Amino acid sequence: MPAISIKGDEMPASPIRKLTPYAEKAKREGKHVYHLNIGQPDIETPKGMLEAIRNIDFKVWAYTPSEGIESYRNKLAGYYNNLGYAISADDIIVTNGGSEALSFAMQACINPGEEVIIPEPFYANYNSFTRAAGAVIVPILSSIDHGFALPPIADFEAAITAKTRAIVLCNPNNPTGYLYSRKELEALRELCLKYDLFLIIDEAYREFCYDGREFVSPMQLEGLEQHTVVIDTVSKRYSACGARLGCLITKNKALWSTVLKFAQARLSAPAVAQIAAEAAIDTPQSYFDAVKNEYTARRDVLVAGLNAIDGVYSPNPGGAFYVVARLPVDDADRFCQWMLEHFSYENQTVMMAPASGFYNTSGSGKNEVRLAYVLNVNDLKRALICLERGLAEYPGRL
Amino acid sequence: MPAISIKGDEMPASPIRKLTPYAEKAKREGKHVYHLNIGQPDIETPKGMLEAIRNIDFKVWAYTPSEGIESYRNKLAGYYNNLGYAISADDIIVTNGGSEALSFAMQACINPGEEVIIPEPFYANYNSFTRAAGAVIVPILSSIDHGFALPPIADFEAAITAKTRAIVLCNPNNPTGYLYSRKELEALRELCLKYDLFLIIDEAYREFCYDGREFVSPMQLEGLEQHTVVIDTVSKRYSACGARLGCLITKNKALWSTVLKFAQARLSAPAVAQIAAEAAIDTPQSYFDAVKNEYTARRDVLVAGLNAIDGVYSPNPGGAFYVVARLPVDDADRFCQWMLEHFSYENQTVMMAPASGFYNTSGSGKNEVRLAYVLNVNDLKRALICLERGLAEYPGRL
Ligand SMILES: Cc1ncc(COP(=O)(O)O)c(C=O)c1O
Ligand SMILES: Cc1ncc(COP(=O)(O)O)c(C=O)c1O
Repeated sequence: MPAISIKGDEMPASPIRKLTPYAEKAKREGKHVYHLNIGQPDIETPKGMLEAIRNIDFKVWAYTPSEGIESYRNKLAGYYNNLGYAISADDIIVTNGGSEALSFAMQACINPGEEVIIPEPFYANYNSFTRAAGAVIVPILSSIDHGFALPPIADFEAAITAKTRAIVLCNPNNPTGYLYSRKELEALRELCLKYDLFLIIDEAYREFCYDGREFVSPMQLEGLEQHTVVIDTVSKRYSACGARLGCLITKNKALWSTVLKFAQARLSAPAVAQIAAEAAIDTPQSYFDAVKNEYTARRDVLVAGLNAIDGVYSPNPGGAFYVVARLPVDDADRFCQWMLEHFSYENQTVMMAPASGFYNTSGSGKNEVRLAYVLNVNDLKRALICLERGLAEYPGRL
Repeated sequence: MPAISIKGDEMPASPIRKLTPYAEKAKREGKHVYHLNIGQPDIETPKGMLEAIRNIDFKVWAYTPSEGIESYRNKLAGYYNNLGYAISADDIIVTNGGSEALSFAMQACINPGEEVIIPEPFYANYNSFTRAAGAVIVPILSSIDHGFALPPIADFEAAITAKTRAIVLCNPNNPTGYLYSRKELEALRELCLKYDLFLIIDEAYREFCYDGREFVSPMQLEGLEQHTVVIDTVSKRYSACGARLGCLITKNKALWSTVLKFAQARLSAPAVAQIAAEAAIDTPQSYFDAVKNEYTARRDVLVAGLNAIDGVYSPNPGGAFYVVARLPVDDADRFCQWMLEHFSYENQTVMMAPASGFYNTSGSGKNEVRLAYVLNVNDLKRALICLERGLAEYPGRL
């Protein structure tokens, strides 16, 4: 029997799915499980976007250009220019989700054996895309005690070697919800210019900034045009994760042309999704306002509820729809599994993602969990009651 | 300015797009261009498949399971079992086109520096997926004089080294249209068992076999269960290239689990495409019969027309919708460009894909072109007239 590749053997399994068998068992036992472990929002997709799907009128479901449908890229460019990105349609390559944009960025920017620096905790699949490119992640610790703010620039400088090729940053952040400030992004600009590094900036949660706080992209900063690679997706913006549509944006022409070659090899992004996403750009502001209000209310309930539980600490993050909280437990992996396997309160329990899966430094995040506030306020309140009871009963409580 | 990765630099640009600027110029000059260069069929997508798109009724366009929607995989398994593959839904991973299935297969089966053997001419994007995995293609020549039949097994054996990990075969073949026989596949089975090689079999054109000839898959042969990896796609089967939906099938559980990790990293395949493809499995046989009749008629016109031109030779292939023909020219790349740039007949010309892009051995296929019979019979006849006139006028005619 032929052997699997080494890369395949070493490819990490998804950390947020590790506990799925326990959740399934809990459900088979009749427990209701509050899913705070995954980033699948319950928010409805904009009606106009779904309408566009129902209105398709082609007779041949054909390939689209490898870089994306021209009218869609033009409209996308308008969306970004409204944000001050100053780009054209020719700076965009439409991809199969933000996931593929990440994979293209890694393949096009980093050689096997070279390094990318990423503040941890970070979106776990960065591991997969980096490893698939043969590259190595050098993590830098961002700490819950500083609300997961950007680590000091000195920490980055200490991590930079001759092999460092890029910094990856997710803003607003998954898993921490932290919204990076203009000052932090300006500091990164100086660093990337000084060491000539790509800045791969994952803006999957751009639309989700709360409390009237400003979203800043390196695309809005001068001087970093040749270094910036934006990763974007319609998954969260329009609650359209199943569309599998994202894009990569760069004003670096050599990089754009290289990414196009990868895009041509896989022929095209999905056609119906592009038609629907083009329509989605006309989604009225009222949709986003309502979604933002809903998420703000959820975050407020979740963060206040967490901090009201004895021994629990959660920062109050400015964006996305996640928080990473510290729990008074010996081991959050064990606790999360125990919640599914051995605990229930009024026949209910909570599924959370142990934060360890978002750290590369072993031992880090051992008593932290990520909670996604993708459920309504009432369900969140019930989930918080379960969590409180669970912590009170858990044998490994500290 | 940071440098592009070496892999990115070396990634081949798409050979069938090389001449696109010349085709665009020809169109700007008012010429009608018959596109025989690309594999985008003009055949209509089955009505039931398009209906399924128009009937979507979800409110949240959500991620689907990374391995694919369960009901779709079940129905797919039924489709394959009707062909005698003897598989279950758990042997399938649904992918973003056959393209992603190819990329997963390369990443999961081959280590950087290792080798895959592929009869040439072959689908040019195999180069991209192989290089992205850091692996190397060892081409073996299949010759137009033998109708592009499988090269002698001795040629494979001569190419096998300690680094060989897989054989890739496309059946029916793109670009040659050759339909491999049961005997040829049985010979490959013995070879793969003897040297413990994966057989990555690309069946994108399975549905297109003519003259009542039998399609044989290694999935139907005993003994190769642990070695066979099927690459499939709905692109050509249902003329649904824009769906971006394919799958990888293997009964090798270690390989399946490894591919699942790559699939989990990119989260999901497109949701609407899966819903539509599930409906497409009920497409009546009359649809395929009509399509087959249409393609048979086109192939007959094209092959007869080619062989009627002085100095031209085309085999009569048994499947897919391509032929590779030999032309009496000094250099097919130059000729194809000349046809777009300097030739027209009644304000029309033909775009073909020079076959050199489908060979890795330099100098091979220098006087061959690939023609895709994706136009109706009347257009094909007109295109043939253009080709005949063009060959008569071409200064580099032999
Ligand atoms: C930070 C981040 N980046 C990228 C992605 C990929 O999203 P998609 O491939 O659905 O666009 C996700 C999905 O959860 C994410 O959280
Ligand atoms: C031989 C072969 N394999 C795979 C593919 C990939 O097709 P898709 O990604 O559209 O499924 C193609 C497309 O033309 C092909 O010709």
